[in-house]
Amino acid sequence: MSLLLNCDLGESFGSWTMGMDEQVMPHIDQANIACGFHAGDPVTMLHTLNLASDNKVMIGAHPAYPDLVGFGRRSMNCSVNEMRALVLYQLSALDGMAQSTGQQVEYVKPHGALYNDMMANALVREAIMEALASYHRPVRLMLQATPQFETHKQEAEKHGLELWFEAFADRCYDDDGKLLSRAKTGAVHSHDKMMAQVRQLAEQGTITTVSGHTLQLQVDTLCVHGDNAAGVAAIQDIRALIKGGVTHE
Amino acid sequence: MSLLLNCDLGESFGSWTMGMDEQVMPHIDQANIACGFHAGDPVTMLHTLNLASDNKVMIGAHPAYPDLVGFGRRSMNCSVNEMRALVLYQLSALDGMAQSTGQQVEYVKPHGALYNDMMANALVREAIMEALASYHRPVRLMLQATPQFETHKQEAEKHGLELWFEAFADRCYDDDGKLLSRAKTGAVHSHDKMMAQVRQLAEQGTITTVSGHTLQLQVDTLCVHGDNAAGVAAIQDIRALIKGGVTHE
Amino acid sequence: MSLLLNCDLGESFGSWTMGMDEQVMPHIDQANIACGFHAGDPVTMLHTLNLASDNKVMIGAHPAYPDLVGFGRRSMNCSVNEMRALVLYQLSALDGMAQSTGQQVEYVKPHGALYNDMMANALVREAIMEALASYHRPVRLMLQATPQFETHKQEAEKHGLELWFEAFADRCYDDDGKLLSRAKTGAVHSHDKMMAQVRQLAEQGTITTVSGHTLQLQVDTLCVHGDNAAGVAAIQDIRALIKGGVTHE
Amino acid sequence: MSLLLNCDLGESFGSWTMGMDEQVMPHIDQANIACGFHAGDPVTMLHTLNLASDNKVMIGAHPAYPDLVGFGRRSMNCSVNEMRALVLYQLSALDGMAQSTGQQVEYVKPHGALYNDMMANALVREAIMEALASYHRPVRLMLQATPQFETHKQEAEKHGLELWFEAFADRCYDDDGKLLSRAKTGAVHSHDKMMAQVRQLAEQGTITTVSGHTLQLQVDTLCVHGDNAAGVAAIQDIRALIKGGVTHE
Repeated sequence: MSLLLNCDLGESFGSWTMGMDEQVMPHIDQANIACGFHAGDPVTMLHTLNLASDNKVMIGAHPAYPDLVGFGRRSMNCSVNEMRALVLYQLSALDGMAQSTGQQVEYVKPHGALYNDMMANALVREAIMEALASYHRPVRLMLQATPQFETHKQEAEKHGLELWFEAFADRCYDDDGKLLSRAKTGAVHSHDKMMAQVRQLAEQGTITTVSGHTLQLQVDTLCVHGDNAAGVAAIQDIRALIKGGVTHE
Repeated sequence: MSLLLNCDLGESFGSWTMGMDEQVMPHIDQANIACGFHAGDPVTMLHTLNLASDNKVMIGAHPAYPDLVGFGRRSMNCSVNEMRALVLYQLSALDGMAQSTGQQVEYVKPHGALYNDMMANALVREAIMEALASYHRPVRLMLQATPQFETHKQEAEKHGLELWFEAFADRCYDDDGKLLSRAKTGAVHSHDKMMAQVRQLAEQGTITTVSGHTLQLQVDTLCVHGDNAAGVAAIQDIRALIKGGVTHE
Repeated sequence: MSLLLNCDLGESFGSWTMGMDEQVMPHIDQANIACGFHAGDPVTMLHTLNLASDNKVMIGAHPAYPDLVGFGRRSMNCSVNEMRALVLYQLSALDGMAQSTGQQVEYVKPHGALYNDMMANALVREAIMEALASYHRPVRLMLQATPQFETHKQEAEKHGLELWFEAFADRCYDDDGKLLSRAKTGAVHSHDKMMAQVRQLAEQGTITTVSGHTLQLQVDTLCVHGDNAAGVAAIQDIRALIKGGVTHE
Repeated sequence: MSLLLNCDLGESFGSWTMGMDEQVMPHIDQANIACGFHAGDPVTMLHTLNLASDNKVMIGAHPAYPDLVGFGRRSMNCSVNEMRALVLYQLSALDGMAQSTGQQVEYVKPHGALYNDMMANALVREAIMEALASYHRPVRLMLQATPQFETHKQEAEKHGLELWFEAFADRCYDDDGKLLSRAKTGAVHSHDKMMAQVRQLAEQGTITTVSGHTLQLQVDTLCVHGDNAAGVAAIQDIRALIKGGVTHE
């Protein structure tokens, strides 16, 4: 299967605009759509869903902690009970709206601090998996491709869930398979390095880490960013590279 | 068919409690559950859905204007587009959660100012009907039984929707079939007058208005209130009266 | 006194940016700063206050209905009690923050639907005036310059308040002194018409209405817009015209 | 100086009621009033301020993380910049409203998770102290009396702030001077133990810890709770004990 491209979309809110959704949507496979807790409002969500439909893009829910002013980027010490309920609420809201447009939510990718907490904390992962497992229809969980992928698969199997693993096109990895902190030099790749990383992932299924080691990663989808014109151009370049007959075994 | 009893439930929010849901649920047929915009949060919604499941009570979505601090009681000048989207969002959120508990939303009853605006304004009614009609599964709209019920039925048929008409057990009606304003003396019935009104509705399908006229109303369900102990007791009295072999033809 | 220029600023929210505040601030006299109910968050408010301080711009509070997703543009049917309290809350929040930066709020200009409701409804005006009169320090109310200005002055005097009257540089007026609805052709002036309107206001204190009548308006300040580059350029042109020795008697 | 009594008040929100403020206010010295981020809305705040004024109770601001649904009890990973601004915003909002009622905010006591984070983390303490120090008028910070009180005093002096130290009447302390976790047996005292702890604090300025050690604490004020009838009765008992000639040196 070829690597898919996923992108966070629908992150405008009311009168405030964010992202170049119209420009990005034609070039991606999977749209992670905000559900109202960190961004997105009902009108924006419907608009984004229609845009995805026009471009035949797969729909993912992008739930977050309830923190509009912090854009879901601040970790909140929610209980397991609260996390289960807020993920289920956001998934449900988007899925019902998606179905009213003839689509449906295929997967859930947590946003921001909820994503980071999920990767760092097995209890958060379990709460999220329980929420998805309780849904009346199968939906996948998208999480980061790391050397711990087997553990994550086993956790998912316990809940009867399937996973999608994502890698980041433009981020440098450390030897543990984590993203290098943005505070460090070289954390975000230049365009050339990004393209090389994508090519290596697509052809060999590996990443070269910050110290030069080679890391094998099981990757289904690449996370790309469409906040500005340079980002949109990069998405098109990545798309062309992947579509050019290069496949991921 | 016997008259059903519907009640607004799930109107707690976070640490704040409202209503005697545990006491009310065993005695009603239909639970109008808040969806997070005027009351209700994901944890409260799940809790209320489970309570409804335990008591085999039918689930209705109770969507509102986005006004937590005003409890959805203040009319907001939303566009048709905004109203459609916010009704669909709230319906979807509750329905997905309901399905995760093995139930599903059967109807929508707008809350507070949105309900009043729906009864007063054909454009609001149309926006709400469009939202329900766009849903991928049939859900009914619950609105007030008035002398205009034929008009409302025709509007609903245009959208392929079915309706439920509700009357108010404890409220005095004027000659136009509207509720007497709460500002007026006699707007809210004593217990005896309430029971008489319920009996007349159940046996004859009519209401005696404030001026003594008899008004024929098509009524499927009675709205009852469970905010306090007296309300819960009244619900049980009404239930006994209706169940006592009295049926509505 | 020369005409002042006022502009809505500080209307970003969390991660969402709105307006070209850095570009606008050097060219205006009065900054109407959002207080958190339709836009603005504590960090944005402090940032905007510091920007005003750097440019020696007078501070005004820009309170709104509590409606983030609607940007305060949707009328809400608040009680007089609620309006008084929400205006006082927003004024207080901004003023305390302003004082922590060595400035203070000099006036209040309601935002969006609250502004429109204030101009259309004497009860709303009274609620707002009561809020300002209850404040422990004199602050002016800014409202629209209309033929009803004497009425507004009398209302303000009853509350011991002083007023500032504003006109709109770029909007066409009807014969009643109201703004022509944006739905109508010619509602928003071309650059040339806008400059002519400003010149006429500055030199003669009059407006030419849509039908060609001349309307005398008592105007203290002009509302200008800094949402985009064209708006910022227009502000500079208006500034140059007014500063060029032209004064309003 | 005699021990003062402080209590969290004004924690209703819109249509939801919490606490027995009317019953509590006559028996306390200091009201910690919610400022809208975890509880409290502008109408509730004004009402609570008037109640404090009627009872000549000192006003404190009770700021929190922006988390209504979590009642400010969930730690949020805010930046120092965000914490400074949100404390200043809430202090300002309450103080301006207080001044409109002829009172003023005398101190700030952070709420819930913000309080806990302040006690546990010097960076949070510094952000809060900076916010208070930036205010144009002196306001004290209220924090927990612990064996680290000298450190806290030195931190406050750097910012030119004065402190109030509070102890908890009904909570058992561990040997480090921290509150015993509510998860542990004996964490919350019986009425008799609470009264004994208050008497010991008032007479000797010490606490007997869970293991029987005696801990000296510098305490200015006792935190009491007015959520229910038993709590209100306890406040009256504590008040009588303290007023009965017992003073704290």
